[in-house]
Formats: sequence, structure tokens, C-alpha cells
Amino acid sequence: MARPDTVLALDIGGTKMLAALVRDDRLIEAHTMPTPRGGDPEAWLAALFAAIAGWKGRYDTAGVAVTGIIDEGCWSPLNRRTLDIPDRFPLVALVARLSGVDRVLAANDAQAAAWGEYVFGAGQGHDLVFLTVSTGIGGGIVVNGRLLGGLAGHFGQFRSLGEEGRALEDKVSGHWIASEASPHRPGATARDVFDAAAAGHGWAQAIIQASARQTALLCGNIQLALDPARIVIGGGIGLAPGYLESVRQALGGLPPRLTPQLHPAALAEKAGVVGIADLARRQN
Amino acid sequence: MARPDTVLALDIGGTKMLAALVRDDRLIEAHTMPTPRGGDPEAWLAALFAAIAGWKGRYDTAGVAVTGIIDEGCWSPLNRRTLDIPDRFPLVALVARLSGVDRVLAANDAQAAAWGEYVFGAGQGHDLVFLTVSTGIGGGIVVNGRLLGGLAGHFGQFRSLGEEGRALEDKVSGHWIASEASPHRPGATARDVFDAAAAGHGWAQAIIQASARQTALLCGNIQLALDPARIVIGGGIGLAPGYLESVRQALGGLPPRLTPQLHPAALAEKAGVVGIADLARRQN
Repeated sequence: MARPDTVLALDIGGTKMLAALVRDDRLIEAHTMPTPRGGDPEAWLAALFAAIAGWKGRYDTAGVAVTGIIDEGCWSPLNRRTLDIPDRFPLVALVARLSGVDRVLAANDAQAAAWGEYVFGAGQGHDLVFLTVSTGIGGGIVVNGRLLGGLAGHFGQFRSLGEEGRALEDKVSGHWIASEASPHRPGATARDVFDAAAAGHGWAQAIIQASARQTALLCGNIQLALDPARIVIGGGIGLAPGYLESVRQALGGLPPRLTPQLHPAALAEKAGVVGIADLARRQN
Repeated sequence: MARPDTVLALDIGGTKMLAALVRDDRLIEAHTMPTPRGGDPEAWLAALFAAIAGWKGRYDTAGVAVTGIIDEGCWSPLNRRTLDIPDRFPLVALVARLSGVDRVLAANDAQAAAWGEYVFGAGQGHDLVFLTVSTGIGGGIVVNGRLLGGLAGHFGQFRSLGEEGRALEDKVSGHWIASEASPHRPGATARDVFDAAAAGHGWAQAIIQASARQTALLCGNIQLALDPARIVIGGGIGLAPGYLESVRQALGGLPPRLTPQLHPAALAEKAGVVGIADLARRQN
């Protein structure tokens, strides 16, 4: 029997999909599987719903967090390199059909995670900007207790003059860290670079410092643009040992009033499903 | 006798001060004077109130828009080159004393102008980011029908790596346009550069194009960060003939969903007093 406090929450990313039955910030049951190569979102979601068919009847509300942009229940890609989907894919209608429930809400994954951190995590009810520094960079914004939708929070796509076609995330992200490492250690992943930095290798420390300086500048600019009470940093790079401290050091020269208050994200990989579940639960 | 719909509104800038009796978007009476050289804000405001002593009794609410940051009724400088004032100057208390009214609200001038454009100008009730491109660059943000306070909207202070100490406005503003012109025409003002561009001088057109490209990039980044329904452009440079069109052209390559909707500001120099008057009228 469906409990009104239990939400089916999905998080569809470029490499994996997570489905969970969520109550507040707890995952009662969860299922993860790789996002299928090829095919389209309809096939991916059909595969995911086949795996969780046993959960039917235990929820009457569903939420879906996805990489990309959600407008009026439809899903469009922002960066086809992260996830190649059709334009204006009718995501909410499809999930309503597959789940059999009418109450379905969709949102961008970093926006959903921002909301999760705001309600249950490092935000603790303070207006915040959430930044996930990972393979790419995503973000979400909570202002006056409300989550901004549409494109809002896509800081990773910021551009500067003189670097045509290059986004901010191309100078910060896990992708960039790995590519900078290749002359020193071919095939190294971002994690290898953090390991090499911890082992005292100067080249690795320099790459991580360069990424942290860009993130620090971004945080300083976000403070000037939005003046959030907190900036919450998540993601595999953002939460890697020493990274947040490097960002704080790079901010060292700023006057106190302009210095962002940085907090590590508290919900880790469940931020997206916890956030979208809460948003779905609150909708009318 | 004080009419409750009439607000005393002040706009204190780096070069001039404007006082007005404001009803909605109309200035019933107005007085402008240069901001005195030297002295401190107490002396400036005393001079301004001496000039408008005859308005006493015609208002029961006052609003003050200023360059810099307002926190808890106190005024602090962000950039001492624009206006050199003490830290945490008790502005609201001083204006209450000089005006003799208790209902006093202070806000940043570009934030106040953003609110004015939102209610009475080019925003027409749509969430917006307001950018004033002038001697420097200021801005304000209205999200979900509310004006963001504190530092919010200080886009002109954005920094990039590799340009230490240089703010975005140092590559866009009237100051920058005039300084770039000096090899071509010593002593030229920003207005002279626009005149020279209109007369067909390539060097002047190139300077204006370079400024417009930076403004276009900023608008593109604002769209990715906040996704406002409109970006409203004001200021002496922003509203100079051809400038907005150059910014639009520089945005030409973006996909429609990422392209900002640019609108020229409608209230011109009265946006600050109209906005702060409305904000002051609405406070409790």
C-alpha cells in the first residue's frame, strides 16, 4: 500500500541511473544500473522500471532528476557530450506512464541536489549555491527558500573572451585534470592525480591547485552575483581530500565581506534523489 | 500634509546626488546637485537636505539608493575608487534624523534601479537581471518577484584568472572605452568614441565592439547562472546608439534556449529613485 511519505526518485546521469524509494533523506530501497550505451531515454527508463517492478504500489508520487534542462516536463540536452538525448523529450509523461502515478516532477540533477542539500544537508535552511565539481561542473541555486529552475546554476558552461568554445568546466573538471596529467602519467584518471599529489608529486599538486584556483574564482564571482549565505561544494573532485582547503586558500586575499562561506556537501551521491523526492512531495 | 503615496527618494552617486518626491514612477519635484568633493556622507546629506528643506511635511517615508553595499541599514564601500566612504556608515539612522521620518529604507543603487525597471519599466513584472553599463558596471536581480540584496548583482566586479586585480568592468566600461581611445584621440571621453564610431572611424568602432563582446559574454553567463526572463540594459554606454544591437550581434551564435532576451532600460536616470521609493513604500 502506497505511503504518502514515500517517493519513487530517479537520478539519470551520463554513466549510471539510480532509483530509490525515499522518505525524507533516507533511501528505503535503492537500485543502480549503468545508463545503457545507445538507444534513447525511453529504452533506458523501460529497463530501469523493469528492474524495480516489485516496488509498484509502494509510492504514489515520483520524481526524476536528470542531467540537462527541464522545461514544462520536457527534457532537453545542454551538452550532448555529457548525455545525448533528443530535444524536448516528454520525460514527465513517460515516467507517469511507466510508474502508473500521476504526481510526477522532473528537475535538473544539480538543481535537485541543491534542494536536497538545502533541506537535509549542508545548507540547513540557508539560501545557498550548490556546486558539484566532478567529470563536469553543475550547480543549483536556492534563493529566498526557492529553487531556481530552467538553466539556472549551469556555472560550468561560463565562457570567457579569448577562449572561444571553451567552457569554465574545461579548466576545472575531472576531465581536465586527467587530460593535464597525461604528459606526466599517460592514462591517469583524476583520482590517480589526487593520489600522486598526496604522494608528493609536484606536477600533480600543480594541476589540482590550478583547478582549485579556477573554482575559487568562480565561487568569488558567485558571491558577487548572488551573495548566498553558503556555497556548498560536492562532487568527486569537490570532495576529494584537500580540494576544498585549496579552494579556501586561493580565496585568502579577499576582504571578509566578499569571501564565500564554503561548506562540503553532506548528502554525497544521494543528494539528487533526496532533493527530487522532496520537491515531488511538495508539489501541490 | 504628508500623502502616504509620496516618498522622498534619494540617489547618491559618485558624481551627483538626486533627491525627488516620487509617486509611482513620477517625479513630482526633483533636485540634483554634485556630490561634494571631500568631506563625508554626513556632510553630503546635510547639504542635500538643506536644499530640499521646503519639502518637509510632504512625505512620511524615505528611501535612499547608493553606490556600494547596504547591510542592516549601514553603508559600506565596495570599490573606493567609485566613492570613498567609511565602512558601515549608519545611513538609515542619519536619513531618519535629517528627514524627520521613521520609515526609511536604503539599498544599493543598481538594485533599486532593477526594482524600478521590474515594477514600472522594461521588466513589466518579469523576473529580470538589470545591468547598467556606465562609468563602471552595476546590476540588480529580481527572482520570483523579489529583489536580491547584499552584494547581489555586482557583476562588474567579476574576475578571471590570468588578469589579477582586473575586474570585468575594466574591460567594458566607459572608463575603459575612454582609456582605449587615448592613443587615437588623447583626452577623448566615451561619448567622443561613440561619436567617432558613428562618423565611421574604425578604431572607435573596434573599441565599442570589444566592449559589446564582453557585455555579450556576461549576458550569456548570466543566462546560464540565473535564467532570467529578461536582461534589461541601462546606463550611458548600455543605452548609447548601436550598443545594444552590437551586444545582440555578439550573441548571434548561441542556441535559442541559451540566448538572453535583452531589453533597453525604460526609466533612464530616474530608475534608482523610482525603485527605492517603491521599495520604501512596500516595507511593512
